[in-house]
Amino acid sequence: MSLQSIKYSRGSLEILDQLLLPGQSKYVVVRGVEDGWKVINKMQVRGAPAIAIVGCLSLAVEINPEDFENKKSLRQEIEGKLNYLVSARPTAVNMKIAADELITLANELYKDEAIDVTQMKHRFLDATEAMLKKDIADNRAIGANGAQAILQRVAKAGKTPAGSTGSVRVLTHCNTGSLATAGYGTALGVVRQLAELGKLEHVYCTETRPYNQGARLTAYELVHEKFPATLVLDSMVAALLRAKNVAAVVVGADRVASNGDTANKIGTYQIAVVAKHHDVPFYVAAPLTSIDLAIPGGDHIIIEERPDREMTHVGEHRIAAPGINCWNPAFDVTPASLITGIITERGVFKPAELKEAITKLLES
Amino acid sequence: MSLQSIKYSRGSLEILDQLLLPGQSKYVVVRGVEDGWKVINKMQVRGAPAIAIVGCLSLAVEINPEDFENKKSLRQEIEGKLNYLVSARPTAVNMKIAADELITLANELYKDEAIDVTQMKHRFLDATEAMLKKDIADNRAIGANGAQAILQRVAKAGKTPAGSTGSVRVLTHCNTGSLATAGYGTALGVVRQLAELGKLEHVYCTETRPYNQGARLTAYELVHEKFPATLVLDSMVAALLRAKNVAAVVVGADRVASNGDTANKIGTYQIAVVAKHHDVPFYVAAPLTSIDLAIPGGDHIIIEERPDREMTHVGEHRIAAPGINCWNPAFDVTPASLITGIITERGVFKPAELKEAITKLLES
Repeated sequence: MSLQSIKYSRGSLEILDQLLLPGQSKYVVVRGVEDGWKVINKMQVRGAPAIAIVGCLSLAVEINPEDFENKKSLRQEIEGKLNYLVSARPTAVNMKIAADELITLANELYKDEAIDVTQMKHRFLDATEAMLKKDIADNRAIGANGAQAILQRVAKAGKTPAGSTGSVRVLTHCNTGSLATAGYGTALGVVRQLAELGKLEHVYCTETRPYNQGARLTAYELVHEKFPATLVLDSMVAALLRAKNVAAVVVGADRVASNGDTANKIGTYQIAVVAKHHDVPFYVAAPLTSIDLAIPGGDHIIIEERPDREMTHVGEHRIAAPGINCWNPAFDVTPASLITGIITERGVFKPAELKEAITKLLES
Repeated sequence: MSLQSIKYSRGSLEILDQLLLPGQSKYVVVRGVEDGWKVINKMQVRGAPAIAIVGCLSLAVEINPEDFENKKSLRQEIEGKLNYLVSARPTAVNMKIAADELITLANELYKDEAIDVTQMKHRFLDATEAMLKKDIADNRAIGANGAQAILQRVAKAGKTPAGSTGSVRVLTHCNTGSLATAGYGTALGVVRQLAELGKLEHVYCTETRPYNQGARLTAYELVHEKFPATLVLDSMVAALLRAKNVAAVVVGADRVASNGDTANKIGTYQIAVVAKHHDVPFYVAAPLTSIDLAIPGGDHIIIEERPDREMTHVGEHRIAAPGINCWNPAFDVTPASLITGIITERGVFKPAELKEAITKLLES
């Protein structure tokens, strides 16, 4: 089964300590909100969807109906603890959104005179657990849709490697797997699905400087899954596409504009340019929540520039000449014209079709 | 003046200890062949041209005519010591070529009955010193030819940044400067020449994984020269060319085939693809000795694949997940179709013109 960064069953929560990766694989028991706050704040769990799920589940494992005299005190407990969890990583917006949703639910349950405190607790737990299930189900759907799209396209183009039975080689960038989501992953979910279908000949992952999420995290997941996998440096993509008959590139997205322009980890745009040059299809895998129809195009996405130190040091070790200036944008924007398809849990869309398709889905 | 990695005057030789860069800038005194062998073997000096020059000069500073009774013993000394120096880094072919040239000269001088042992020594020293001078003179000519070509092209295209007086922003890859040559540099020589002409608005250098020659060495040289310079990661070139109005890319070459296909540090091909996409001219700077007319095209150049450890570790620190496979080609081949011009000490040639032009130069 795929790597579990979050192990949850009712009353029990453990998370894979990402600070120790890739050297050690150790799970940390999360007994309640205090533990949840700590693992989020210390970045033992990272990735916006994962943070939100772990935060909410840390409250779920703590709540005990016997502790509450009445629904009012339970409501207060939920609201207070969730707001406290948001403070662990204030910039991780998914935790705030999840907290607000659950607080709204708690208020509705409180007002609903038909249910008692035990029922209220169970409804709350169900809603929290549904978040975990939905994230994983959405990722599995993204994986299935993406794998199908890639295999169909490759079959049509007659591009499977000689002697193979329709298996494909794919390339991915950064980390979009179990370690960044509630489980399964987005772009890496597509890779998992190809493997489940017996159609993954090989997966290549880029190092992804400056934080090396590819070398540290994606490579860790691929080794864990025993997928046929190879790490390449960010500078090697063109040489790789030329030499290794890669059938498709699939990456994640931080945000997709309504015209299909996509902001993602720095280096994504370069890979898209190189894929176009080599006539290799380039897919973006993202849940519908990452598509922001309010943004008309990529020019409207502000790119965060990060501190020089991320580039000049590895840990405490300086690797760049002292005194050199650095340019360190965290993301770049890939124009829609370079994107073959945007893979969502509800289907794969060409960038030009995206706005209309999503609008219809949201209306239906 | 430009960074001196080799400080030589008759009887005195010091080299910048590259093992201590970029943290410390310390010169090592080379008193003779024993010291020369050590600094080459320990890689305190690196880069094939630099190794050859330092090896030969280490013999030049040691030879004392009073020590030799006759020309025969001087001839034997030269031959023995030069062959010993070749053993310090047997794969650095330039040292072997230089040694063979000087041994041939020593044999000729030995046979020439018109000169005595003192004259023989002086002629030998002159020839050794001429190697240093020629390498630097060739690099300066490459710099001048390249700067002129870039400025002319930019002027024609009307691509200088708004508000500037014809100054340009350029991008380079890996290290091709004073630290890789006898001095001045090839691609970095072009950058130096632009600066000397007052036409360098900004130079960007790539990190150049896995050995980070850009971040360690090129950045060190650029800081030393006080050039307006910025380090970018290998994944950022496309974003850079899109955002920063870069006028030209200039890189070095390990070997140029007769059709203009160029083998150079891994990542060069990707930069060429990205430059083409952004309509930015892409130049290769290389001395005529790097152009091998015996090689018809890039397909005939064998690409060395290097150990995984270069990618998985920084020093003793593991940065990649244990167990992941790596693909680590040291070089890639940029096809002639992506190269705007090949800058040599005798002129700038389009790839298609290269073979005929070089053949003519060699005949003249």
